[in-house]
Amino acid sequence: MKPTMLKVGYPAALSADLVSLFPSGVELVPLPSKPEGEIEVDFWIPPPAAVLGQRVWPHLRGVSIVQSLMAGTEWLTDMVEPSVTVCNAQGAHSISTAEWTLSAILAQLKYLPLYHQLQQQSDWAGRRAASAAYAAIHKDDAPQFPPVLQEELHGKRVLIVGHGDIGKYIEKLLVPFGVTITRVARSARTQPRVHPVDALDSLLPDADIVVLILPHTPATHGLIGAKQLALMPQGALLVNAARGPIVQTDALVEALNAGHIRAALDVTDPEPLPADHPLWKCPNLLITPHVAGSTPQFSPRAVQIAVDQLNRLLKGEPLIYVVQQGKA
Amino acid sequence: MKPTMLKVGYPAALSADLVSLFPSGVELVPLPSKPEGEIEVDFWIPPPAAVLGQRVWPHLRGVSIVQSLMAGTEWLTDMVEPSVTVCNAQGAHSISTAEWTLSAILAQLKYLPLYHQLQQQSDWAGRRAASAAYAAIHKDDAPQFPPVLQEELHGKRVLIVGHGDIGKYIEKLLVPFGVTITRVARSARTQPRVHPVDALDSLLPDADIVVLILPHTPATHGLIGAKQLALMPQGALLVNAARGPIVQTDALVEALNAGHIRAALDVTDPEPLPADHPLWKCPNLLITPHVAGSTPQFSPRAVQIAVDQLNRLLKGEPLIYVVQQGKA
Repeated sequence: MKPTMLKVGYPAALSADLVSLFPSGVELVPLPSKPEGEIEVDFWIPPPAAVLGQRVWPHLRGVSIVQSLMAGTEWLTDMVEPSVTVCNAQGAHSISTAEWTLSAILAQLKYLPLYHQLQQQSDWAGRRAASAAYAAIHKDDAPQFPPVLQEELHGKRVLIVGHGDIGKYIEKLLVPFGVTITRVARSARTQPRVHPVDALDSLLPDADIVVLILPHTPATHGLIGAKQLALMPQGALLVNAARGPIVQTDALVEALNAGHIRAALDVTDPEPLPADHPLWKCPNLLITPHVAGSTPQFSPRAVQIAVDQLNRLLKGEPLIYVVQQGKA
Repeated sequence: MKPTMLKVGYPAALSADLVSLFPSGVELVPLPSKPEGEIEVDFWIPPPAAVLGQRVWPHLRGVSIVQSLMAGTEWLTDMVEPSVTVCNAQGAHSISTAEWTLSAILAQLKYLPLYHQLQQQSDWAGRRAASAAYAAIHKDDAPQFPPVLQEELHGKRVLIVGHGDIGKYIEKLLVPFGVTITRVARSARTQPRVHPVDALDSLLPDADIVVLILPHTPATHGLIGAKQLALMPQGALLVNAARGPIVQTDALVEALNAGHIRAALDVTDPEPLPADHPLWKCPNLLITPHVAGSTPQFSPRAVQIAVDQLNRLLKGEPLIYVVQQGKA
């Protein structure tokens, strides 16, 4: 008797050229975005957004392995039973998220939001507002000659909180700018030196830029609160490329409105950010609406990770990138 | 008889801590921004803007050496007699201008102007406009799953036009992003390979990003015109970190309004850009009002270059960074 083939459920919206990458030894089950009835699937590749995946899951039966296309899988481990194995797509977002981080740091240091506003107003001379912005955020009233119109990344002290794939790639992109890098992660390491997360409070006062790129777990939930924001130097820049709830939003709104720090966020809590949320109107803040991972190169990279996992299963090799070990 | 000391004229607005760097063997002559009468000066350090320097120059007598605080000196060589030696401040702007270039490239690839507009409107869901913007600028109507919300610098082909201090620093910052770099300069070189400017037209069709960072001379005036813009691929990005007149503004306005290319400009022609100029309203364009060099670190670096030159003179050593050799 021929053994039953592994049933692989994947978003029906996946393009044909990506579907063609799947190995031949499996049964492909394209899943509509709004399924009806019950669908038998062994290996589920959820659509790349929690809200879409939560619509599909109740219709699935028999899933033993979930292979996410994203790095963050907290909504999956919250949703599926502990008996289901959950794997993430570590690396699929590294390049795009690290690039977003550099773009956000540079945009803030170069006052690009201010210059964009001047451009919208066809106002060249308004650039003098940058000098006032610099004096205000750094509480520096010394006369400027010539006027300061941008800041430099060169010479800045950058604290990278989280040292996985993306954190390492961010560091690689930062190095030639001539910055001083300090690393923090959940567990301390050497070569390179990574401080334990317990050391965060003692490191914040010496950071011009703090980059958050660690997973959202119960231990990192609300990691950055009023105390941590107060420990950051006047005018320092907080960059959240991780998950919104790692920062306590109320405390952030307060620190921004007090003019103590600057921030750049691709993620917020809540998300999406409602139109009447006070965060939208905070000064010295750049918000992008959770876009850092969504580049044209994302799908091919993420699907290739799923294809590699299927090939491991077919060869009897162990899965990698396992974030929840179920019975599979 | 004691020999007459070298009279060094410098902007009176220079901060005291920078003035304290000047060597003791010279006579310091602080120059007001609006001088009256005639002032004897041997070595002139002009204020860091043409419009300010043009006001001071008619009052100076006896100048044999001009040490600019800027990299660009075309207004000085246009203004002073050929008998006056003119030196620039090569390197004083390298870091800041190279960083601006990276910030401008990333801002455009990451659609930061669009996201800033959404932030001003407290509009998270509006991010779908980025997918439409991507499809339009790349004339790519293929279905996107998930939607494209940003682009990557990784894998892009960058043509750097100009390979002096700043061009080399831009290259250094770009390397870890995983781009393919091609170089063009006035004179061809090897190790690394630099193509002659004659080869520009043949290289443009293979460039996703074109960075202009070469001096403005009669030979580079209007270098980028309608023909060159048409040779750039659909959706390519032109970055001008050099001087406005290197690009033919009318042709640029036309190429942008036709949706053929994108651009990021720190310099324009004319400059300042009048409020009613059509460039302000072009699509896919980021304008900053000539701010790339103006960081807090600029003055100390530029003044140090002038101090080093004075020390060379006092020791009888030849000047460096000479852009016009006069009788001095």
